[in-house]
Parts: sequence; structure tokens; C-alpha cells
Amino acid sequence: MSPLLGASRQFSPLLTDLYQLTMLQSYLEYEMNDIAVFELFVRKLPQGRNFLVAAGLDQVLDYLENLHFSQEELGWLATRFPSHVITYLEQFRFEGDVHAMPEGTVFFPNEPIIRIIAPLPQAQLVESRIMNLMHFETLIASKAARSVLVAPDKLLVDFGMRRAHGAEAGLLAARASYLAGFSGSATVLAGAVFDVPLYGTMAHSYIQAHGDENAAFEHFARSHPQNTVLLIDTYDTEAAAIKVVALADTLASDQIDIHGVRLDSGDLAEHAKNVRQILDQGGLTKTTIFASGNIDEYRLHDLIASGSPINGFGIGTALDISSDAPSLDCAYKLQEYAGKPRRKRSEGKATWPGRKQVYRRYDAGNRLAGDIVALEKHDVQTGEPLIKLMMLAGRRIHEKISLHDIRKRTLAGYTRLSEQMSTLEPAPAYPVRISKALHVLADQLDAEMAEKN
Amino acid sequence: MSPLLGASRQFSPLLTDLYQLTMLQSYLEYEMNDIAVFELFVRKLPQGRNFLVAAGLDQVLDYLENLHFSQEELGWLATRFPSHVITYLEQFRFEGDVHAMPEGTVFFPNEPIIRIIAPLPQAQLVESRIMNLMHFETLIASKAARSVLVAPDKLLVDFGMRRAHGAEAGLLAARASYLAGFSGSATVLAGAVFDVPLYGTMAHSYIQAHGDENAAFEHFARSHPQNTVLLIDTYDTEAAAIKVVALADTLASDQIDIHGVRLDSGDLAEHAKNVRQILDQGGLTKTTIFASGNIDEYRLHDLIASGSPINGFGIGTALDISSDAPSLDCAYKLQEYAGKPRRKRSEGKATWPGRKQVYRRYDAGNRLAGDIVALEKHDVQTGEPLIKLMMLAGRRIHEKISLHDIRKRTLAGYTRLSEQMSTLEPAPAYPVRISKALHVLADQLDAEMAEKN
Repeated sequence: MSPLLGASRQFSPLLTDLYQLTMLQSYLEYEMNDIAVFELFVRKLPQGRNFLVAAGLDQVLDYLENLHFSQEELGWLATRFPSHVITYLEQFRFEGDVHAMPEGTVFFPNEPIIRIIAPLPQAQLVESRIMNLMHFETLIASKAARSVLVAPDKLLVDFGMRRAHGAEAGLLAARASYLAGFSGSATVLAGAVFDVPLYGTMAHSYIQAHGDENAAFEHFARSHPQNTVLLIDTYDTEAAAIKVVALADTLASDQIDIHGVRLDSGDLAEHAKNVRQILDQGGLTKTTIFASGNIDEYRLHDLIASGSPINGFGIGTALDISSDAPSLDCAYKLQEYAGKPRRKRSEGKATWPGRKQVYRRYDAGNRLAGDIVALEKHDVQTGEPLIKLMMLAGRRIHEKISLHDIRKRTLAGYTRLSEQMSTLEPAPAYPVRISKALHVLADQLDAEMAEKN
Repeated sequence: MSPLLGASRQFSPLLTDLYQLTMLQSYLEYEMNDIAVFELFVRKLPQGRNFLVAAGLDQVLDYLENLHFSQEELGWLATRFPSHVITYLEQFRFEGDVHAMPEGTVFFPNEPIIRIIAPLPQAQLVESRIMNLMHFETLIASKAARSVLVAPDKLLVDFGMRRAHGAEAGLLAARASYLAGFSGSATVLAGAVFDVPLYGTMAHSYIQAHGDENAAFEHFARSHPQNTVLLIDTYDTEAAAIKVVALADTLASDQIDIHGVRLDSGDLAEHAKNVRQILDQGGLTKTTIFASGNIDEYRLHDLIASGSPINGFGIGTALDISSDAPSLDCAYKLQEYAGKPRRKRSEGKATWPGRKQVYRRYDAGNRLAGDIVALEKHDVQTGEPLIKLMMLAGRRIHEKISLHDIRKRTLAGYTRLSEQMSTLEPAPAYPVRISKALHVLADQLDAEMAEKN
């Protein structure tokens, strides 16, 4: 793990819900230490979405491998919990198994994306943070995928850290959006920690501090001759574009090129058209136009559909908060305990019991044709099994895959989506079938429960 | 600072946007090291909102006091920036002044909530993280305030960590919602770090693992005789309430009371009514009813308006993601450099120049009657000045105020809101006037800029 992570990614294990600890105390007192199986899944797609993209697994595996309580944390807990709980937590290490869909996998409601198999107190304690990590990165990867599908040939950069929800959201949004196909991020820490490619230009304050665009542009170009991208909307966009052309002449003798200009306000399509014309007439045909400012996948779609000469986009708030769907309806549910399948029956929130596998079939054109959720054992279906063993007895079974490779795999996966699913328009619901054996098991458990409760 | 924070709150200073560093390099190369003044404000209220609540200042001051670059961070930066930048960052400490509204202050668009005064490279570098912190905590405090105003006499608990956007969002949502008047949180780390009161019961998995509600309820009561709150919706809510009554009889001989039950699904109003009746008929008149599950301030309002016998509420996702408005349109803008006021003129995003103060007037009933945004100097207005000095030359000027005291002050502030502003209905826009001197200054700068650019 990168030392740069240091104080950034290993959060205290106290980042959990209090009931995880109160339940843990009771599990210990009643010796409920048998193997529990929990699965995390999404109950339904956000309105208007056609699919989701799994992400966050790498952070979950890091968390599980490193989970332990410090002396300070144990000291604080000792003021609230009996000593047998503290003794247990002193030794605490996660020793379970994890199965999951690889990061970047397209998935649908009711399909488990991660399964935790561990003694009940362990599998329970990790619920809150696993949800917290998988929910957020999946949310952002799924949001980012929409822009990537709309603008596959454009430079797409995550600009959202400042309005992301706190530090970790800023960092992980950069990771999740890159994983889903973005070109990179402005968030420096994401470059340092995850090797996400970094992009950045200048803020309006840079221009304002100079008080004079000519001086500001020239200073920036001379400081950054390898990457001169100038922000031209502080006062009057077209007037600034004319200054850029003049500056290019001045700088030519020093072999400094102006690589790009950035627009950040007003009617981006109109300004881009005008600026392209000014740049081209000034001979700056290779100078690119980069746009930012309240862009989401819908504005992106419209700008591209209208043939706007914009080469790249900075997408900020809408991406990092997943503006149209800032949360997913996901759940981490007990599916088996002590060898026996379990089922929650709460109104509107019933779950499918047991350890499950998801099988995916493809049509003749190699596009997704339907999934089946089946029991993991003795219920083999045709299709590609999506859920794989990732961690055994608390240790990863594979070397870490580089984020660049995960991104490539994600992009390859998009080519197997139907055309309809690849647009921003809602497609017909993708078929996810529950296997017959799973139906039978659920009915059987319901009958047992009806007797008991 | 609590040692529990350890790895949790001091994020790397690399959590910034790349352009902060590229601009910094250029500022150093052109000796632009004069004093810069930046102010953070919100451009407009989210749809349907009447006011916002300032929060996050304490985290910003912590960040500024502790900001420095480690050897690892400098080493990474050295692969991307020239050595004079690294030399500068080796020595980097924030040495500026900070003025701000105290946390918990109600505020409105165009009112600065924090001002940073420091040499330009310093004031610029801290932009991204200051926005990231102030934006998020203000977002959550403002959201939480709505539930507090709707249900001032109910127990309100933050349940949102699992779907908050990452670790820090979970932690700081607990802080911000408590600051805004919530009773507490389920997030353990918020108790350890901020002394936020903690609440928690049990999950469905606890019941499912037992497979039998009777056993589960009794085990939990015996493990937690001081705080027995039982989750009763796993299979059949009313049937479970009847079991609770029977269990209370069994436990009476051991002097164990059942303090509460929790509902988490179905029609909460209907179930609460039935359950209250079952509990009362069983003699459990003191056993409270706690409800959770997709609650936001609107559902809260409706449940209370219908007279539902619910004593407390767990509010999760809707709070921690601020579901109706997951971001604020805020900006951190340069208002003065080298003693000269500055103004951004970008279309739709023009700013008010100079260092500013906000004056608040009250009516005869001590309710908010209107604010004036004026220049800090030589532009005194009637009313209470809201912006105060908080940090001088990089050090806090006051001892930290306890979160409990901030919360009390926030709650006192709500009593000065008009009745209309205290509801979920949109009230007429609160009057925020820009002083005459500020108008004059803006016009003067525009005229100068028109000549220059």
C-alpha cells in the first residue's frame, strides 16, 4: 500500500454503526459464532437507469485485510462495553472468505455483487463499512459510465472533488469514474494513490489576481510550456480568444504552443463555435477546446449531438454526487447461518435466501441476453458465472489488478450492452430470472417461518 | 485532537485540485505573493429551501492549523513539479487569517460564510479542501435543520453512515446533523471523536440468525438490560409486538424492562398505531416506538401531523446524502489581491468584490427581518454583524467550542426564524440587500475592466 495513503484511507474501525457492536456483544454472550453468509445487492435501479457498474471491491478487501483495533480505540470502547467484548476485539482480525463480481462488471437488481462468509460476529461487524464503500464507488462508476457511453471519443475529466461529500468521496470518485472509463481527474491525491491520470488548468482567481488576461495567459504559458490550457471566460470569452491568438504569435519565437482553452460559463455550444472560428482563423487549429460548468451526461449528449467543436469536458458536481440518483437502494443481508439458509420477510423488503451465483447469457452478437440468479451449489445454469472467489481466510487470493487494467475490462464490457441500454433513454427492463431451485428454497423457508413466528 | 482521529481525519494535503499546484508554481515564478482575500458563499438556495445553516468551520480550522507536506508527498510531487515548488512546499504552513460566521448560523445566498486572507499561493492552495469541508457539513446541517424544525420534541437519530458518500461523509454527517439539533447518531466514530450521543438497536440479521424472534428478543434483552430496543418487523410486526408483551412478563422477575421497539418497514403509521395498542393493552405503556426506513422530513411531517404514536425516528440516507438537494451552488472567489478589490464577470457567475460583512436586523418579535451585505470597512450598517475573526496568522484565536454548545446556539437561532421559514413550505425570499457602497465598488471595477480587457 502506498505510504501516501498514510492518513488518508485507513479509517478507524469505529466507523461502524453502534448496533454492530451491541449485536456482537450478544453474539459472544450466546456463543453464536457459527459461519454466517451475507450478500450485498441492489433492490432496484434508480429511475431512468438501465444498469449499474460494480466498484469498490479493492477498497473492501484492503479494509478487511487491515481491520484491527488500536489501543486508543479499545480504551474508548472499554468505557462502553464489558471486558469480554474488549478482549475479543483486541484479537480481532477478519478471517473470512469473500466472493464478488470483479470491479467494472455491469449488474442488475437482486444480483449479489459481494458475499462475505465468516463467523457471525465478524461478518456482522464489517457490514456498515462494506456498504459505505461498495455503495459509493458503485454509485459513481454507474454514473460515470453514462457519460463515457455518450462521449466515447472525448476527453472526460472528473472535476468534482470540491463538492464531493468529504475527503474520501473526492478521492474515491476519481477512482470510480476512471475505472468506469473517464480519462482522469483533477484530484491530485487520486494520482498519487491510484495512478489516475491528472488534468488541470487554472482558476478564475489566477486571471483576477493578474487583473489583466494578457499578462495572466503569458505567465501561465511560460510557467507551463508543456501544458498550456488557458481559461478564457473570466470577462468576455470571444475577446479572450482573440488575445490567445495574439499571444500564440508572441510565444511562437520561444517554441511555446497554446494547447487548449477552457470555457466555464454561458452558452457553451455558442461560445465553442465562436472560439473555434477565432482560433482557426488565427492559425491555432490544433488548440483544443475544453468545457466545464454544470455539465452532466444529458448536457454532454446535447453538446455532442449538436456537433459542438468541444474536445474535452470537465464533469464535476453532477458526477461526484451522482446528481440524478445520489444513492442506491442496496442492502447487506444474512442469507445463511450455521449451514441453514435465512430469509428476511419484512414488507417490501423480502430477500432471496442462500449463497447465490449469477449466470449471464449472451446473444449471437455477443450482447447481454439475460441473467439468472441461482443457488451457488447444485443449481448450475447455462451462462457465464459472474461471482468469483476473491479472498480466502482473510487474505486476497490474487495480486491486486491495476486500475488501468480494470478500466480496460470495464470498457470492453460496455461493448456487450445492447444499443438501447447504452443510451440515456430508459431501455426495457433487462431480464433477471430467479432460478426454480431458489424459488423452491424461499417457499420452503417461508413455510417453516410461518410455523415458528 | 483526539488520538482516535489518528488515521481518520487528517487527509493528505494532496487532496486538492491539480490546478491549485500549477497556479502555485506560476505565482512563485512571477513573485505573486501579495495578500489575497477569498470568500466562500452560496449563489442560490436549493429549490424549496428557506435558509441554510453554516457548518464545517471547525474542520477547516483544524485543516489549516495542521496543513503540511510529508516527505512521501514531497517525493511524489518532485516527479511532477520543479524543485523551487518542492522547496516552497517543504516549508509550507498556513499563516493567514480567517473570518467566518460561527457554526450553526442561519444564512442566505450571496452572504460570505468564511473569508481567507493570506499570501496568494497559500490562500489558493487551500481552496479545494475548504470547499469540500464547508460545502458538505453546511449541506447536511441545512438538511437536518428541516427535520428538527418539523419534529422538535422527538428523538431524531442519524442512521445514514452506510449510504453516506464514503468514510468522512459518514463521520461528518453525524457531526453536522447533531450540530443542527439531531439527538445523536448511530455512527460510533462520531461518538468517539465528537462526543455525539450514540444510539443503536439490532439489525434484522440478529433476528434471522436466531431464526426465532422469541429467542432473539430475550437474548438481546439479557445482553442489554439497560437499553432494550427490539426490532419487530422481520416477519410480522403485530405478531412480534405480542411476543414483546409476553417477554416483558418473563423478564419482569429479573427487573429487565423493554425500553422500546423499532419498526423499519411497511406502513409505519398503521403499524405504530397497532403496536401502541398491543403494548398498552399488555401494560407496556412506557415502552417507546422508534421508526426508521426511508424517512425524510416530509414523511416525518406527515407522521407527526397524523398524530402517529412514534417517539423517535432514525433518519438515514435522505439525511446523509441530502436527498432533495445533494449539493449546494457555492463558490470560493478572489475578492481582493494586493490591496485591490477584484471581481469575476463570467456570465451568470459575477461576484461582489471586496471584503464583506453581513448585518442582520430583527423585528420587534426578535425574528429575522432582513440582512445587508456591505463592505467590511467604512460601510457600517445597522444590525448584528455576523462575520467574526476566527484565526489570526494561522492560529485559532479562541479555544474550541464544544459541539454541544454549538448545537444549543443553533437551536436558539431557530427560534428567531419567522414561522413561515420554519416550515417545509417555501416562504417568500428572505430579503438580502447589497449595500450602496458595494454596488458602487462593483460598477467602478466593471468600468476599469471594460477598459483593460
